[in-house]
Amino acid sequence: MTDGMTDEIFEEGITETIVTTLSAAGVPNAAPMGVIKRGESLFIRMYPGSRTYANVKETGHLVANIVTDPVLFVTTAFEDLENSYYLPQQDMPPVIKDAYAWAYFKADVQGTVKLSTVCSKILKTRVPRFSRGFASVIDATITGTRLSILGQPGKSRILDDDILVRKCGTPRDIEAMDRLKKLLGLSA
Amino acid sequence: MTDGMTDEIFEEGITETIVTTLSAAGVPNAAPMGVIKRGESLFIRMYPGSRTYANVKETGHLVANIVTDPVLFVTTAFEDLENSYYLPQQDMPPVIKDAYAWAYFKADVQGTVKLSTVCSKILKTRVPRFSRGFASVIDATITGTRLSILGQPGKSRILDDDILVRKCGTPRDIEAMDRLKKLLGLSA
Repeated sequence: MTDGMTDEIFEEGITETIVTTLSAAGVPNAAPMGVIKRGESLFIRMYPGSRTYANVKETGHLVANIVTDPVLFVTTAFEDLENSYYLPQQDMPPVIKDAYAWAYFKADVQGTVKLSTVCSKILKTRVPRFSRGFASVIDATITGTRLSILGQPGKSRILDDDILVRKCGTPRDIEAMDRLKKLLGLSA
Repeated sequence: MTDGMTDEIFEEGITETIVTTLSAAGVPNAAPMGVIKRGESLFIRMYPGSRTYANVKETGHLVANIVTDPVLFVTTAFEDLENSYYLPQQDMPPVIKDAYAWAYFKADVQGTVKLSTVCSKILKTRVPRFSRGFASVIDATITGTRLSILGQPGKSRILDDDILVRKCGTPRDIEAMDRLKKLLGLSA
């Protein structure tokens, strides 16, 4: 189920977000995840081993944040996010400080995680500039999380992405890519 | 040289735009091109054989449009754009009808095409939703324009992009990819 505002945030297909959750004990977590929209259904395919999955099972809720900082995607894919990036909220998980928009969902684990909107907020908007630099950081990050399965072709793909990031990216994209390569042991 | 508003539209690195130009005789043309920003310099690397390059040599000006419709990127890469997509302007090339923003540049051909802002306009903004579907259409379009050089590895890349578009894209992304494959003779 979606309301009017989540329709402005999520479109048919997959929107790349950073999902924030709380454990039952109240410890925040952030991880990059695609929110899938098929008709009126919103859902996420989660790795059952992830912290996000455990938190959703414990609390039944999550927040999907729209952010544009490539370093946040790399960091949350592999490391704990520093507390300073979270903006605490009343009775829901924290949102990411610089998010353009967020949606707070009731999340039901049924194979996939089905999402029902509780509330959502658009905080700011911008000219939708597209850069292959940012796109390549996201591609490399997703490839990086699957590197143990993908092996050498995965590494080659990340190094191809690296070339595009250096050609097309912002300084922040290049910083994100450098951090990713370091985390994956792919730095020169 | 940039002014304050072009700084909001273009960031360091490459921003993918659709460039509109007029021939000396006043015939409009549109083509997808990356606007490169390095420090305070804005420029475009153009194929000397392109219609855009000829028009810039004839008139010394171009408009870079920020658009989000993937079909427009595919179409303008390979075909003439229907007149209904152009919004005529006084004393400058037409802009693309659904552009979020555009910048009108004086364009000096000196190896690369150096851009100096005449004026620019932000018409609308949005939540900067990122989808690998749109990104893969752009990647496949750029690969498609170089297919005669890239050969089979280029075709493989486009078919990998096709898989991502079907998994992550909007219906419009899928329509754009289908059109691209048809134009390149890669349809099943």
